[in-house]
Amino acid sequence: MFDGVVLDKPKEQCGIFGIFCNNKKVDVARLTYYSLYSLQHRGQESTGIAVSTESSIISHKQMGLVPEVFNDGILDKLKGIAAIGHVRYSTTGSSVLANAQPLVVKYKSGTMAIGHNGNLVNALKIREELEDKGTVFQTTIDSEVIANLIARTGLQNIEEGVSSALKKLEGSFALVILTENKLMGIRDPYGLRPLSLGRLDGNYMLASETCVFETLGAEFIRDVEPGEIVVVDEKGVRSIKFDETKGNALCIFEFVYFARPDSIIHGSSVHMSRLEAGKQLAREHPVDADLVIGVPNSGTVAAMGYAEESGIPFGIGLIKNRYIGRTFIQPDQHSRELGVKLKLNPVKALIKNKRVVMVDDSIVRGTTSRQIVQMLRDAGAKEVHMRVSSPPIGYSCYFGIDTSTRKELIGASHTVEEICKKIQADSLGYISLEGLIRSTGLPREEFCVGCFEGSYPMKVPGEGNKFLFEKE
Amino acid sequence: MFDGVVLDKPKEQCGIFGIFCNNKKVDVARLTYYSLYSLQHRGQESTGIAVSTESSIISHKQMGLVPEVFNDGILDKLKGIAAIGHVRYSTTGSSVLANAQPLVVKYKSGTMAIGHNGNLVNALKIREELEDKGTVFQTTIDSEVIANLIARTGLQNIEEGVSSALKKLEGSFALVILTENKLMGIRDPYGLRPLSLGRLDGNYMLASETCVFETLGAEFIRDVEPGEIVVVDEKGVRSIKFDETKGNALCIFEFVYFARPDSIIHGSSVHMSRLEAGKQLAREHPVDADLVIGVPNSGTVAAMGYAEESGIPFGIGLIKNRYIGRTFIQPDQHSRELGVKLKLNPVKALIKNKRVVMVDDSIVRGTTSRQIVQMLRDAGAKEVHMRVSSPPIGYSCYFGIDTSTRKELIGASHTVEEICKKIQADSLGYISLEGLIRSTGLPREEFCVGCFEGSYPMKVPGEGNKFLFEKE
Amino acid sequence: MFDGVVLDKPKEQCGIFGIFCNNKKVDVARLTYYSLYSLQHRGQESTGIAVSTESSIISHKQMGLVPEVFNDGILDKLKGIAAIGHVRYSTTGSSVLANAQPLVVKYKSGTMAIGHNGNLVNALKIREELEDKGTVFQTTIDSEVIANLIARTGLQNIEEGVSSALKKLEGSFALVILTENKLMGIRDPYGLRPLSLGRLDGNYMLASETCVFETLGAEFIRDVEPGEIVVVDEKGVRSIKFDETKGNALCIFEFVYFARPDSIIHGSSVHMSRLEAGKQLAREHPVDADLVIGVPNSGTVAAMGYAEESGIPFGIGLIKNRYIGRTFIQPDQHSRELGVKLKLNPVKALIKNKRVVMVDDSIVRGTTSRQIVQMLRDAGAKEVHMRVSSPPIGYSCYFGIDTSTRKELIGASHTVEEICKKIQADSLGYISLEGLIRSTGLPREEFCVGCFEGSYPMKVPGEGNKFLFEKE
Amino acid sequence: MFDGVVLDKPKEQCGIFGIFCNNKKVDVARLTYYSLYSLQHRGQESTGIAVSTESSIISHKQMGLVPEVFNDGILDKLKGIAAIGHVRYSTTGSSVLANAQPLVVKYKSGTMAIGHNGNLVNALKIREELEDKGTVFQTTIDSEVIANLIARTGLQNIEEGVSSALKKLEGSFALVILTENKLMGIRDPYGLRPLSLGRLDGNYMLASETCVFETLGAEFIRDVEPGEIVVVDEKGVRSIKFDETKGNALCIFEFVYFARPDSIIHGSSVHMSRLEAGKQLAREHPVDADLVIGVPNSGTVAAMGYAEESGIPFGIGLIKNRYIGRTFIQPDQHSRELGVKLKLNPVKALIKNKRVVMVDDSIVRGTTSRQIVQMLRDAGAKEVHMRVSSPPIGYSCYFGIDTSTRKELIGASHTVEEICKKIQADSLGYISLEGLIRSTGLPREEFCVGCFEGSYPMKVPGEGNKFLFEKE
Repeated sequence: MFDGVVLDKPKEQCGIFGIFCNNKKVDVARLTYYSLYSLQHRGQESTGIAVSTESSIISHKQMGLVPEVFNDGILDKLKGIAAIGHVRYSTTGSSVLANAQPLVVKYKSGTMAIGHNGNLVNALKIREELEDKGTVFQTTIDSEVIANLIARTGLQNIEEGVSSALKKLEGSFALVILTENKLMGIRDPYGLRPLSLGRLDGNYMLASETCVFETLGAEFIRDVEPGEIVVVDEKGVRSIKFDETKGNALCIFEFVYFARPDSIIHGSSVHMSRLEAGKQLAREHPVDADLVIGVPNSGTVAAMGYAEESGIPFGIGLIKNRYIGRTFIQPDQHSRELGVKLKLNPVKALIKNKRVVMVDDSIVRGTTSRQIVQMLRDAGAKEVHMRVSSPPIGYSCYFGIDTSTRKELIGASHTVEEICKKIQADSLGYISLEGLIRSTGLPREEFCVGCFEGSYPMKVPGEGNKFLFEKE
Repeated sequence: MFDGVVLDKPKEQCGIFGIFCNNKKVDVARLTYYSLYSLQHRGQESTGIAVSTESSIISHKQMGLVPEVFNDGILDKLKGIAAIGHVRYSTTGSSVLANAQPLVVKYKSGTMAIGHNGNLVNALKIREELEDKGTVFQTTIDSEVIANLIARTGLQNIEEGVSSALKKLEGSFALVILTENKLMGIRDPYGLRPLSLGRLDGNYMLASETCVFETLGAEFIRDVEPGEIVVVDEKGVRSIKFDETKGNALCIFEFVYFARPDSIIHGSSVHMSRLEAGKQLAREHPVDADLVIGVPNSGTVAAMGYAEESGIPFGIGLIKNRYIGRTFIQPDQHSRELGVKLKLNPVKALIKNKRVVMVDDSIVRGTTSRQIVQMLRDAGAKEVHMRVSSPPIGYSCYFGIDTSTRKELIGASHTVEEICKKIQADSLGYISLEGLIRSTGLPREEFCVGCFEGSYPMKVPGEGNKFLFEKE
Repeated sequence: MFDGVVLDKPKEQCGIFGIFCNNKKVDVARLTYYSLYSLQHRGQESTGIAVSTESSIISHKQMGLVPEVFNDGILDKLKGIAAIGHVRYSTTGSSVLANAQPLVVKYKSGTMAIGHNGNLVNALKIREELEDKGTVFQTTIDSEVIANLIARTGLQNIEEGVSSALKKLEGSFALVILTENKLMGIRDPYGLRPLSLGRLDGNYMLASETCVFETLGAEFIRDVEPGEIVVVDEKGVRSIKFDETKGNALCIFEFVYFARPDSIIHGSSVHMSRLEAGKQLAREHPVDADLVIGVPNSGTVAAMGYAEESGIPFGIGLIKNRYIGRTFIQPDQHSRELGVKLKLNPVKALIKNKRVVMVDDSIVRGTTSRQIVQMLRDAGAKEVHMRVSSPPIGYSCYFGIDTSTRKELIGASHTVEEICKKIQADSLGYISLEGLIRSTGLPREEFCVGCFEGSYPMKVPGEGNKFLFEKE
Repeated sequence: MFDGVVLDKPKEQCGIFGIFCNNKKVDVARLTYYSLYSLQHRGQESTGIAVSTESSIISHKQMGLVPEVFNDGILDKLKGIAAIGHVRYSTTGSSVLANAQPLVVKYKSGTMAIGHNGNLVNALKIREELEDKGTVFQTTIDSEVIANLIARTGLQNIEEGVSSALKKLEGSFALVILTENKLMGIRDPYGLRPLSLGRLDGNYMLASETCVFETLGAEFIRDVEPGEIVVVDEKGVRSIKFDETKGNALCIFEFVYFARPDSIIHGSSVHMSRLEAGKQLAREHPVDADLVIGVPNSGTVAAMGYAEESGIPFGIGLIKNRYIGRTFIQPDQHSRELGVKLKLNPVKALIKNKRVVMVDDSIVRGTTSRQIVQMLRDAGAKEVHMRVSSPPIGYSCYFGIDTSTRKELIGASHTVEEICKKIQADSLGYISLEGLIRSTGLPREEFCVGCFEGSYPMKVPGEGNKFLFEKE
């Protein structure tokens, strides 16, 4: 998650939500506001809500967290029959207000608002084609590309227009699209990003994660299928297949790190999957030790699984300071390590004289891991054995996850042994890909594992092109 | 000017500025910042600056006055070789952040930023045509229409692209356009909105008013001509005529109210013109009285002219409270008049027992005039004779001035006698159109006087269409 | 007035207001809010309102102008039967939040809030005596000294307590004091600072200037007398003389610069007095010239008087930019003069080839005068004759006016001839003290003229002690 | 901790910190800033830092969290040789800016700043005595009482003055006092509130909790003793006993809830104590179940202890949304439960069909417990057995902990059986007081257990007097 002290984690792009509600008494903007709280872990850079008033679409978006962007007065002005919401962490597109979503555009047939989670691998190519035809762009986000494609179809029927446009997209996309009288939820044909359908008091809603439904007291109906458009309007809900399902390729990092543990994805519990990954890790990389701890917060559950399977006691050995936020003033060079120590502090009384197994869910660049290992040794740990509940990340993601460029990935250029030495642990064990997949309870075919294996569900551009849109 | 207590004045749309500077040591963003201070009277709703870094264009804009939108940190980030700036009062396009200018777009041949002062009368028609071809719009401002037209020409040469696009525009437009390596200043073929060219230390600049040049210590070179594009780049300055001059039709309200008195338009001093209008008013509508006062601030100079010509002493009879701004909390219904009294208070000692001539530059709806007449009577004035230094406004403006809809214009439905009765003055005299024109020292053909006469320099749509773009 | 570009003016300390209102339907906080708008010219650094709820006193104060400190939500919470308000420019006491007024304290007999305009010359001595007895101080403002003196009397009757405490004070003080059920208005025995009594719908109010009453539609009753306590409570209004009147010694700068022109002080109109001073100046220092202009805004009225008396036409030759506020970013060293030019710009068309009389109300350090003279020459003035509607300031003020330390006062160390040379004017004429006094229509005995003459109405400490309280 | 959705927890009053540093290169304000981050859990309402510049004390404080109150610019101005800091949750004294600490006062012998954690039970009495002698009060905080007492002693030697004043205080107080050249750390004779001494690079520091030292990389030296003044100045550190130790009476809730788990108090680890309390709870209240979960975050460690001792698996059954902060907009009456659900969401996959032991550290009013029990049942729990790692709270705290008034305490008026019924759990077990004490590893005499037993280490006033100071 985004913080003044940035820990060494992959970054998720976005969370999306949508609701359609014939009953005007329902405050769709406030329901969206509450839902975005439950999706905030997926993006902390900008927040936006667009609402259909039946005759037009009004919106509000700003840089910042949900509570920083919305207040009572703003929500009071967003009255309507349907809404979509978006929280964003930028990968594609710079971190500027113009790139906040939902994007609202007027076109021939009316107004539409679009919220996108994912990354188009052919966005640059489409932009160039559109620019050749005289299109101008005001942002660097994929949603603008998609909106232009839809408008260009010239089809008055929005479902047809959307279907036609989506066929041109390559890459990952979970979308919510709002028009004056319709809400649509869409997943790319590979299903790289999650999107689920729910219902509250007869009103349909869409959300990146099912934890939203739980929180609102809504009923989870089903996941939107790869290649499907779910359309919600006053007549109810219906399904359009804009493309054949090209094979499931859900991003496995949803299970490893991104999704909230209380979410269910493709029928599998995120929490249980992480717990199981920890157990599997214990089976694959046992060690003789006195204490298992997790790196908070994301490593905790896998650590508990490791402890359960290994029989080694689990303990909360690192305390995370939850007050360190974006406005935290970085300590200067001289006291460089203070930042991590303010964020994470070991419980010496627990650690001292113990052989410690420290479980984390992933290693991206390895810098933080080294600091934590040192911190544990300073706290008196006799040995520190690091265990990681995902395989080494050796390849870039082209579908919306910011795993840094390949040359920064420690897993791309170092063997496990070398990494162990770099982070100065006594031993280091990564879960196997098979083990990780097994922990989800889903078949291997269900996942994109490109960042571990380097083979992707579709053709991807060379890495050099990845950030081509970024000028600012 | 915009205030918590809105006085009864026409509203100007925008102020624009541009500078090109080969010398990278010159801080173009700060020069733009200072220039916008001198143009702030032309628009107080939003402020923006776009800067060319040679390879791209970066920008910052927000709702609010210059000092509310910019600070040192923001200006420090806007480093480059050229810049344009914009202050806006909205007529076309709603008062929302999305409509703040300059508008920055990427298109086939690069990036451009546009700042617009004026109003296109065929914007709706062009938008529809563009939408038919699949264009999407993210704002309701004319600049977006213009940007799309330019991009649609497909011409790689920006001067050609702009020239070609401008031919399609009808209405008023003074424009500054910035690309990675060029600055352009443009006036519509009728020259409805002013734009002047200046030079500081060899660097060319464009501004809505010459007072900017005075303030910066720059040299005024000439007005941009109707139908002209002035192009500034590293090679210097050159002129392109994109259309024949269709006749000068400068908005006469620039002289009456909008422009700063220290500006020179078409070679004529705004201050001297107002002074002269006051004298003319005295000749046209003499009255036996003891004191001439102006309604601050805009009526003051004409009042001085009236005094000088009539021989009646001039006095400052109304004190304006300069602290009443946008965040002023309106008094409730009960004390409705408190608002105007907080803003304007009579100097009783001066007014008492006097026959007062009260000079204002215009009457739009007449509501404020009535309150001020009453205020003067309460302060002891024996008689109150109102004199107005512009003719009755009887028709709407289609070129960017918010004069309210025709039915609100007291001059559209009432004779001078009726208005006099409504505002409860002892007598009321408006300057004649001829008298007003004479006061500017410029020929009648130089001006658009549509709001007085109802005949416009070009075909205009019916009033009903005027606000068609406004959805929010 | 306070601005990003600080002009060369003496600085006033404060404006105070109070209202007592048995009718709970009257919104005393909002009336105070509106009144402070009319007193804002007296202080722009901090603003505060304290309200009696009958059982206690609640308050809100912050650094900033009235509209920056108060909004609807804050005013809604300040419900009560009486209120006092304060706007402050700091002379004594640093510019920090702790020093904002009104000061609210709890003491033996209840709660009291105090707002002070003036400066105690024996504050340091009293503070030391109180500290010797164990008193602690949390601010550096005189109000805290006064509050402690009142509490120390131990008198349960607040009128007696206040009377007893006031006898110990030396210096200038206009005070409003609020308790749970009383409002008091007080002027020092010399009447150095103004304070007036008014009535609105049967409710009594106190204000630094009568323009407040005008604006609210209230009736002016009389000035509070030197040495008087005016007590307002549910029984009505009554007067207590806490000390004999030691002679009127009203600060003459109220007429010269501080007070709003629409105020009446000691029965004399501020506006008429300034006009008359201009006339007198013309009689004392005639000159052959073509144009009289005022330095806006404060020199304008005197300039009009000069013009009237001399027969030389008056013109508005300098335009003041009213958008330059506190957050204005100062130009760097290189463009040092840009600041003044952004704030004041000459009307070239008027100035060119003229012999100009430039009237200002005072010269403190002379720096701005030199810049304006140069500006006028640059605008084409053939001659620039400066006339000043107050005598040279040769001595510090000890009673609350920030005239800088003596060594900065150009009038303390230079003859008029030398000053003329320094500011590079063609001639320079100051009004005589007699002339200035005559312009007010009041007798010389009515005024403190210490800053001109160096003789004060009471013993003052050496200049070295003046800022002794200031530590921050 | 403080949140938009207030959970049912006792509220701690404050966290304090101090550092003295002869080396002017050390940035004492920034070190204090970082330390306050580590103490933020003790108070989230206001934050302040005071710094000695050797000649005076400068300070900054505001309502809000550390990152809301301080930024780089503010910290840059706080240069000096020593500093104290304070974070506050208000119990005594209203939640207004005037009550933010440290309190800075000037008195006879110089300036002092005071930061206080605790509550004086005789504050009202002392205030009345001081008011009788003519003292005025500007806040409702105890620090102002203490400052006045110190100043009243008239003793020039600050150690003597402080010692003398402290003897008059009854109640709980951990204090940091800063003068121009001294830092003092003080604990009341009963040691109700913690305070520890540390050292970093030879510079001494004081902090409410030892986790501060860990984070800064400082060395923990020892706890300040009850009745001790630790004085730090350029000569080093020395100890003064201002009173005999009247018996240790540390607030046991520091172990239960307040302190950070990585802190050590009186030599005992907070984390280990909580873990042990969970084990003890399992021994005292065993139950046949499938899963042990903690109410996050404070119940987690005790839940782990319960699981370990009972052999029932521990799981993370409730996910806490860490984005719900102060500005969270409360759902309306209709969706009252949404608030708690947004904050806490069950992991259904884990809970379903399980007999769940839910461990929390305390029950104050019982309302949240009931909601969570219901939430677990809704998530499919077959049984819900609540276990509490502190005894029933039956009595108010008079020493600075906001446990609500006695009539709101469910433990004051209900038997365990009745509470169980109210929260609709299948069973309910509280740890015994003996068990809780044993878990700390410290003797019973070491603690104040007034809130459980109703017998306090000193005479306390009747409950009615508790909030007497509170007027706002």
